[in-house]
Amino acid sequence: MTEPPPAAAQALAEATAQAIWARDRAAQALGIKIVSVAPGRALATMRVRSDMVNGLHICHGGLIFSLADTAFAYACNAYNRNTVAAACHIDFLNPAKEGETLAAEAIERSLSGRTGVYDVTVSVGQRTIALFRGKSRRIAGEVIASLEEADHQAA
Amino acid sequence: MTEPPPAAAQALAEATAQAIWARDRAAQALGIKIVSVAPGRALATMRVRSDMVNGLHICHGGLIFSLADTAFAYACNAYNRNTVAAACHIDFLNPAKEGETLAAEAIERSLSGRTGVYDVTVSVGQRTIALFRGKSRRIAGEVIASLEEADHQAA
Amino acid sequence: MTEPPPAAAQALAEATAQAIWARDRAAQALGIKIVSVAPGRALATMRVRSDMVNGLHICHGGLIFSLADTAFAYACNAYNRNTVAAACHIDFLNPAKEGETLAAEAIERSLSGRTGVYDVTVSVGQRTIALFRGKSRRIAGEVIASLEEADHQAA
Amino acid sequence: MTEPPPAAAQALAEATAQAIWARDRAAQALGIKIVSVAPGRALATMRVRSDMVNGLHICHGGLIFSLADTAFAYACNAYNRNTVAAACHIDFLNPAKEGETLAAEAIERSLSGRTGVYDVTVSVGQRTIALFRGKSRRIAGEVIASLEEADHQAA
Repeated sequence: MTEPPPAAAQALAEATAQAIWARDRAAQALGIKIVSVAPGRALATMRVRSDMVNGLHICHGGLIFSLADTAFAYACNAYNRNTVAAACHIDFLNPAKEGETLAAEAIERSLSGRTGVYDVTVSVGQRTIALFRGKSRRIAGEVIASLEEADHQAA
Repeated sequence: MTEPPPAAAQALAEATAQAIWARDRAAQALGIKIVSVAPGRALATMRVRSDMVNGLHICHGGLIFSLADTAFAYACNAYNRNTVAAACHIDFLNPAKEGETLAAEAIERSLSGRTGVYDVTVSVGQRTIALFRGKSRRIAGEVIASLEEADHQAA
Repeated sequence: MTEPPPAAAQALAEATAQAIWARDRAAQALGIKIVSVAPGRALATMRVRSDMVNGLHICHGGLIFSLADTAFAYACNAYNRNTVAAACHIDFLNPAKEGETLAAEAIERSLSGRTGVYDVTVSVGQRTIALFRGKSRRIAGEVIASLEEADHQAA
Repeated sequence: MTEPPPAAAQALAEATAQAIWARDRAAQALGIKIVSVAPGRALATMRVRSDMVNGLHICHGGLIFSLADTAFAYACNAYNRNTVAAACHIDFLNPAKEGETLAAEAIERSLSGRTGVYDVTVSVGQRTIALFRGKSRRIAGEVIASLEEADHQAA
């Protein structure tokens, strides 16, 4: 396979992210913002709303995970090939409070054959909230085409 | 420490779960239901709503994780001692579709000193959706007292 | 595929284990014993030798992992289909001392398509030393045939 | 706590590594070499010997883990405070063959209170063999003093 030139790869990453985002109701409902994408990389943010905390006013771990998992998904799908999460691991290091904005930065550590490994760091400023590692698996099909087909079937 | 009699332990688990639930806005917002709790165990369910899916009408992995993490939290806090998630690992085995109801069953695998390990199986009927393993760490304080104090501070 | 009858599946598991064991120099060098195998299950033991400990006379975590990983390998290869470890997670709960004998019991939690999840509990009597979870991936070929071919190439 | 100056921290890391190494019979038996240490970092190598492979002449995953775990241990103990592995996760990406030399580089990702997270990359030249993430927990005591005391008790 010929490696696409960097500009084309970047354009493809952005087009794929837009196609995913338009249909990503879960990320939209959580108030997640995709700040930037690049081949194998993504940066996403989420504000800890009052309906995201537990009785101690600390962000639910599942929603911290959801933000990290979202950054991971945009990073590993940036080549416009359908890719799913096979397994994820998260270490919770510090709590995040209501009103704070979490940033999740995903970077590709390895991509070989159909399997990739991505590291996501979730932080509030200089404070690291969680370290996430996700393993991806490429499946059949292209992202943009699959989403358009799903729209067509749903219509 | 004298082991409490089973009836007292069960009553404490239920009282603790009620105290957590009353303030667990994140779980409430996700439509999670705590079906049952016992010392070191919990069963929770969640229906995959239309705002929980991605463009392929498949439940967002972060929300599957959130359900598993919730069952884990109720299981490891059932002794009324403040306990937090230190790390979690999840293997995604099969997708879950919009409209399906996920059940997450948490069981204690180990509890030694302040550290516990809990396994959560997420399923739809006979189909296993994900296997989750969480490591817990007990911190200072009791659950019910801490929550009441947080209410007081917020008032 | 027709499910083989239980007796045939058990015989295949045992034949596969023998074929692996004859060439498993790493497990032999560690003094590991395969106590029993069955489809998707294996039980292995290892005595903590003086060359397996660190300066505190506690078994090296890597060797506890090696025992667990070995039990996992025999369990997931018991169908005579080449299967490799894709990822593993281990929680260390209690130390093991020089002279103790560790037992590692592997059980299959899920097997769907080419991917399986196996849980291994490492213990010394009633004391749990570690909890291990391994994810397997089936690759091309059969175990017994592949090993015989590798022997042929090496000869 | 006053941060020690870099030169003192480096000297302490090296002295601690020497104290561990002198008693680390497991690492010695595996032929592991500690190439370098620094506060929160370590680089270790291991040649894949003929008694480290399985029937397919591929290095046993448990021994790849053992190398990574060793680099992790030297990195997280480099402050001369007794620190143990609480949990580890490893993704196996490519096989390593008999005769190859594996290099494991451990770096500290987070250290907060008594808990640390370390990433270890295992590679052969430009080929990544495995990605390992370890969570450490500091326990009571200092490394050098504890090892000397254990020597004394054993004498």
